[in-house]
Amino acid sequence: MHEPDERNIRRGMTTRKQSPRPPHKNRPGAAPQGARPGPRRQGPGPKRPNKGGDDSYLYGFHAVSAALANPDRDLKRLVLTRNAEAECARDGISLTNDRGILPEIMTNEEIADLLPHGAVHQGIALKASPLPELTIDEACYGANRVLVLDQVTDPHNFGAILRSAAVFGATGLVTTERNSPVPGGVLAKAASGALEKVKIARITNLVRGMEELKELGFEVIGLDGEGDQAMHELKLGAKVALVLGAEGAGLRRLTREHCDLLARLPAAGDMKSLNVSNAAAVALYELFRRSL
Amino acid sequence: MHEPDERNIRRGMTTRKQSPRPPHKNRPGAAPQGARPGPRRQGPGPKRPNKGGDDSYLYGFHAVSAALANPDRDLKRLVLTRNAEAECARDGISLTNDRGILPEIMTNEEIADLLPHGAVHQGIALKASPLPELTIDEACYGANRVLVLDQVTDPHNFGAILRSAAVFGATGLVTTERNSPVPGGVLAKAASGALEKVKIARITNLVRGMEELKELGFEVIGLDGEGDQAMHELKLGAKVALVLGAEGAGLRRLTREHCDLLARLPAAGDMKSLNVSNAAAVALYELFRRSL
Repeated sequence: MHEPDERNIRRGMTTRKQSPRPPHKNRPGAAPQGARPGPRRQGPGPKRPNKGGDDSYLYGFHAVSAALANPDRDLKRLVLTRNAEAECARDGISLTNDRGILPEIMTNEEIADLLPHGAVHQGIALKASPLPELTIDEACYGANRVLVLDQVTDPHNFGAILRSAAVFGATGLVTTERNSPVPGGVLAKAASGALEKVKIARITNLVRGMEELKELGFEVIGLDGEGDQAMHELKLGAKVALVLGAEGAGLRRLTREHCDLLARLPAAGDMKSLNVSNAAAVALYELFRRSL
Repeated sequence: MHEPDERNIRRGMTTRKQSPRPPHKNRPGAAPQGARPGPRRQGPGPKRPNKGGDDSYLYGFHAVSAALANPDRDLKRLVLTRNAEAECARDGISLTNDRGILPEIMTNEEIADLLPHGAVHQGIALKASPLPELTIDEACYGANRVLVLDQVTDPHNFGAILRSAAVFGATGLVTTERNSPVPGGVLAKAASGALEKVKIARITNLVRGMEELKELGFEVIGLDGEGDQAMHELKLGAKVALVLGAEGAGLRRLTREHCDLLARLPAAGDMKSLNVSNAAAVALYELFRRSL
């Protein structure tokens, strides 16, 4: 696995407990009324200083164009090169989305200076508000396939998993506030637009979240090398929540114990373990393939 | 996608043409006699200076223990912490492999100083000779599933693809000398041991290599978003070579034209493109699943 970028892993969420978010409800009926809350800041605490750039910028064509099209984002600043502007025009990407933002033309170097070192920005970057916080009900309502991520901390892996989820029809994702990467530029670039498409609930207690998913009618399947059943042989119902653990460590004991069943991917030889984003892609594909 | 590490992408192979390697043979019968050539240096040219460490070091438990068990490697130096030594003993990993190398105990910091900045070495690193160069015949002999990589330049993606290949029984891989990452520490870490298990042929001309695979009896399937047929619906023979292109750009025109057919992965909605290592994992899984 490539090395996690620690800047993006630790969110400094210690002040989060004082946030005005209501405590978790266990019954679907107890969920807040209304569809999705409007955009608001992700937690009232002071921001940690970010060496090497401002990670509230999204960058790269897919990440930026998806965010421009997302009404849940407050757009703050759009910067791009002349070349990127021409490319957007060719691809029919609206740069303002009729939301009053005025694109600023810059050089590649000027854009790079706004971003973390080494960000491959493709000549386009967007400063936007974080996505709204969602409850499990809000993130998983109407979904047949959802993902649960247990301590997947690497933003590249997390982003690639979001991308696979979007491709294979998993429309909701549940993860923890702690030990999951900040949904900033690195993750958004790896997700290639999927960060705006897959609804994410970031919760405090994963086990409670899994129980909530069961109450919503999801069969909760943990992916585990020691699983009793092979993934491709499972008989599954209509609604499945797939649980994936950390690269290396896998599912934590409590997480495993709260799964309805544990499934493994088949393997040809003595190497059995995939990179976590590859395992997610294969398992999501297997679930999707059956619906075809 | 995470950002490629340029240090590892460009191999500085300009002197390679003067290497004593025989030109490519097109017929299996024309392959050199004997099994695999003995270990030798990957090209006689001067090494490019490597800022931040020596990338002939492999590091991390899986990468190092697989290399220690690989008789094709000349072992030069093994360094590890007391903790890593204890962990190897617990896991039954032989640190010398009866090959006369004497492990050196170091601190984590001393090991880090030998490696590129930020390498997650887990307290163990091994300096070893590069793997021997293989022809297509040598890499693909006896295989039913092989991979062809067309300009997959990112060492993390390349390594993750090797790992999926090993898990799903693709035992050979063909790629180009240029525009593919150096098989060093970054790639080996991502491959988690699979660099020692999947046989790799690095060739000059990919199209010629694809024709050679056809002559060896492989059906050459290109993975392409615009493919005529869905991967899960293909009728396939016993021997399949799966061709994957670069992240973003996909297969080059000539590469596409030399495939026997182009297949696409199914998708649930308007997002259709996966990270290249995820696409490889899913396609390899689909091929493997059918053999179960």
